[in-house]
Amino acid sequence: MKKKIIASLPLLAMATTGAAFAQSSVQLYGNIDQAVTVVDGENTWSGLNSGGNKDSYFGLRGTEDLGNGLKAQFVLESGINADTGNGDSGSGLDFKRRATVGLLGNFGEVHLGRDETAAYKAMQRYDVFNHAGIGGTQSWGLGNNDDKRKDNLIGYVSPNFGGLTFAANYAFGEQSNSTWKTKAYYDAAVSYSQGPWSATFAAEQQNNSLLGGLDTRQRSYALGAGYDFGVVKMVGAYRQTNNQPQGMADYKDKTYTLGAAAPVGAAGVVKASYNRYERHNMASLDAQKADQFSLGYEHNLSKRTALYGTYSYLKNKDGGTMSLVADSGATLSDSGKQHAVQVGLRHSF
Amino acid sequence: MKKKIIASLPLLAMATTGAAFAQSSVQLYGNIDQAVTVVDGENTWSGLNSGGNKDSYFGLRGTEDLGNGLKAQFVLESGINADTGNGDSGSGLDFKRRATVGLLGNFGEVHLGRDETAAYKAMQRYDVFNHAGIGGTQSWGLGNNDDKRKDNLIGYVSPNFGGLTFAANYAFGEQSNSTWKTKAYYDAAVSYSQGPWSATFAAEQQNNSLLGGLDTRQRSYALGAGYDFGVVKMVGAYRQTNNQPQGMADYKDKTYTLGAAAPVGAAGVVKASYNRYERHNMASLDAQKADQFSLGYEHNLSKRTALYGTYSYLKNKDGGTMSLVADSGATLSDSGKQHAVQVGLRHSF
Amino acid sequence: MKKKIIASLPLLAMATTGAAFAQSSVQLYGNIDQAVTVVDGENTWSGLNSGGNKDSYFGLRGTEDLGNGLKAQFVLESGINADTGNGDSGSGLDFKRRATVGLLGNFGEVHLGRDETAAYKAMQRYDVFNHAGIGGTQSWGLGNNDDKRKDNLIGYVSPNFGGLTFAANYAFGEQSNSTWKTKAYYDAAVSYSQGPWSATFAAEQQNNSLLGGLDTRQRSYALGAGYDFGVVKMVGAYRQTNNQPQGMADYKDKTYTLGAAAPVGAAGVVKASYNRYERHNMASLDAQKADQFSLGYEHNLSKRTALYGTYSYLKNKDGGTMSLVADSGATLSDSGKQHAVQVGLRHSF
Repeated sequence: MKKKIIASLPLLAMATTGAAFAQSSVQLYGNIDQAVTVVDGENTWSGLNSGGNKDSYFGLRGTEDLGNGLKAQFVLESGINADTGNGDSGSGLDFKRRATVGLLGNFGEVHLGRDETAAYKAMQRYDVFNHAGIGGTQSWGLGNNDDKRKDNLIGYVSPNFGGLTFAANYAFGEQSNSTWKTKAYYDAAVSYSQGPWSATFAAEQQNNSLLGGLDTRQRSYALGAGYDFGVVKMVGAYRQTNNQPQGMADYKDKTYTLGAAAPVGAAGVVKASYNRYERHNMASLDAQKADQFSLGYEHNLSKRTALYGTYSYLKNKDGGTMSLVADSGATLSDSGKQHAVQVGLRHSF
Repeated sequence: MKKKIIASLPLLAMATTGAAFAQSSVQLYGNIDQAVTVVDGENTWSGLNSGGNKDSYFGLRGTEDLGNGLKAQFVLESGINADTGNGDSGSGLDFKRRATVGLLGNFGEVHLGRDETAAYKAMQRYDVFNHAGIGGTQSWGLGNNDDKRKDNLIGYVSPNFGGLTFAANYAFGEQSNSTWKTKAYYDAAVSYSQGPWSATFAAEQQNNSLLGGLDTRQRSYALGAGYDFGVVKMVGAYRQTNNQPQGMADYKDKTYTLGAAAPVGAAGVVKASYNRYERHNMASLDAQKADQFSLGYEHNLSKRTALYGTYSYLKNKDGGTMSLVADSGATLSDSGKQHAVQVGLRHSF
Repeated sequence: MKKKIIASLPLLAMATTGAAFAQSSVQLYGNIDQAVTVVDGENTWSGLNSGGNKDSYFGLRGTEDLGNGLKAQFVLESGINADTGNGDSGSGLDFKRRATVGLLGNFGEVHLGRDETAAYKAMQRYDVFNHAGIGGTQSWGLGNNDDKRKDNLIGYVSPNFGGLTFAANYAFGEQSNSTWKTKAYYDAAVSYSQGPWSATFAAEQQNNSLLGGLDTRQRSYALGAGYDFGVVKMVGAYRQTNNQPQGMADYKDKTYTLGAAAPVGAAGVVKASYNRYERHNMASLDAQKADQFSLGYEHNLSKRTALYGTYSYLKNKDGGTMSLVADSGATLSDSGKQHAVQVGLRHSF
């Protein structure tokens, strides 16, 4: 008898879990990250920023088992400027971080809608500062072929073939009386992960971007690799955009990224990174340069919650006008230097 | 003993279900529908559209039992342009699909706020294409007395009297120093459902709409009926709007709809419909006409998820300028023809 | 055997409750309140209003136990114009009611982001009409130092010391090349609650507000006290704002509030309040006055749901131009009187 009862528990647990699932086939999730920021340089600024360690967002997602290994999945995700309560566009909420529905099976995953590009998604792991806050790389930054996300995507993600995965997207240009190529965007990324190793190669093409008044085709390439030594994880990345304006000479934009993350004690992580930017002034096509050094410490209070502090230093060269904090309101003049410190709290749910 | 254990299961299941309910008196629900669309005609277009088979939206709703057969209920529902992640107005999210609170009892239901009109709600079942996508009827379309939803409603829905139900709304015009009638909207719908039969009659009045620069009163009537033969379900509908501009002759807009839906196998549905539109040019008051033929197939992967394909053909006559896809960016010239194909995935949660 | 089974129930219930918690560490909550409103005076108006008894909103919140008495907590809260489905700014949804993440412990609570000011939060209990609807006080109203909520806050709330609590905020001004004080906001509130007694004192300072074209520093003070006699609860409050425009004479704005709330039967509450406003015309700096008398009845159908009716009368003096309903569209002329009635339904979830 005793055995019977015990045997019935898993069944019962399933039944009640099933009941709970029936009411909430939807999962609510998100991340709220706020940081006190102080910027010093040719201009000074202090304030509260959203996403010093990781972007702030919330979302709804769910998966339905359709049988025979097939699943349906949807994701709706909204960025938040958590310091003001606005959406991350600076006004209201929308689902412009992600709005997709798709099918998953042994063939991989096909989804439709707005999503991160395959290139950005695959390369994200090669910045120890999560492309966020003052320490984050600006390899996708203000400038060229820099959309991290695209509307009107058809996306494919392959199954994992012994560590190897492949992902690709086509985004409609949605132009009237034009070819399917007009304003279209394509990308593909191949990623490899095995034990301590990882590597990624990604390529993107954006047709017909208007840059400096010229119809420009943009092709970007990105390479990344990482190795986890245990005491420290090292990552390196390179991203290059070839801008091809109609009837004009081509010009290139480049970002080099090096990073290291080392666990300290049971709950701490020390992080450091170096970014080198070479971007172009539309007028002269000369490369404007900037170097960025970042150092950070992250203290995990739990798997979901962390306190962190980041220091970053950015130095412009050859007419560069980059800036550490996008929403700082501070515009550095040529050859300017900027120091910034960010101390914050991140909590995911 | 064995019996006792089994008997205790339902009680236990109730207890745990109750616990789960306590944490979530709110239900999150929605629908995400994305479709690849290709339009051919005097203008061509290709892209991704939201809501090819059914509108995309998400919502929060909940019901509280107040005892003595009385219940409180709220609904907050937000439309989504799922292809871009925007709200369905093209910018941010809002609850303009529905925002109501109400009381339910043996008297029926009374609710306050923004909601679908009783006329639109009752007539929806007479379009086999759900008023969505390229195949959907545009009986509520661009033009006259076409609001599917109204702000500032007081709504009533009757109990079901042996298949017969009645619903009515009054929407405040909210004008200063005016009568209660100024800009007000009223509607009522009577619906009957019994076995294979269904029928609806709905009437609407919108006071003081500004049409073509003239203060116009609009009265709409709609009739619908359906019969389910088992092998095929047939539906027919008619909607007419009488526009009465101040100091001008009246003019009418009409839509005729015929539809059929036939189950194919265990999971498929074939759908066909014909719409005839007769609308008015404000300048000449001549009726511009258009005919729309649609054919679709829907394959249900589950109760919540379906793949579908739709073909639709629209032909303008006598100066008509209607178009199959509202967000196609394509404007057909007089007497133009348009073909479109839509293939998509719908998933509700 | 029977005992064993019963003993296993709590364990099992915990297991399944745990499973349900795992899926929803987030709580969805909110309030929907709709009221039919009729305004009579020099201008008339009728319509549906959101928040006649309590603001309409929805939110997401969650708490994580970090061990050792430490907790992480987030809140995202969005105001709703429930009568139209818009956000409470009149357009889309955002989290401008609250967007915070913080830590709670035996030291109290520290949080970062956008929130209600400590002054407003502490003084809210001294208006029997919840600062909402036609009966609500406008001590935080159109005019001076009137932000109920601030962006970019660092907030602190003390533990409860035998009925005494303390809360304070600093809101960054976020100005480039300025001192930390530029456009900054500070406030603090001390509150006491013991048995039937409660009392609050709050002080606020807003640097560099632009009022009537002049750079103005605003300092507000608020005092409130309440005593619950059992048959009736009495409250009184006073709020004063000192406006100090650069190079101009100071001027003051004042609000006096008196209120009473008496339980009637098991489910009813009768409420009455008087507000006296003394505000300033920027041009003449003469005090414009208004008196507001409000009477209301609230019938609780449950803890979460109530029907209510409110009558309010407002009389302007000495050039005052205040109005009972902000979104009425009615502008009273000098010395005007306004009567209004509001009947509505409130439901929280």
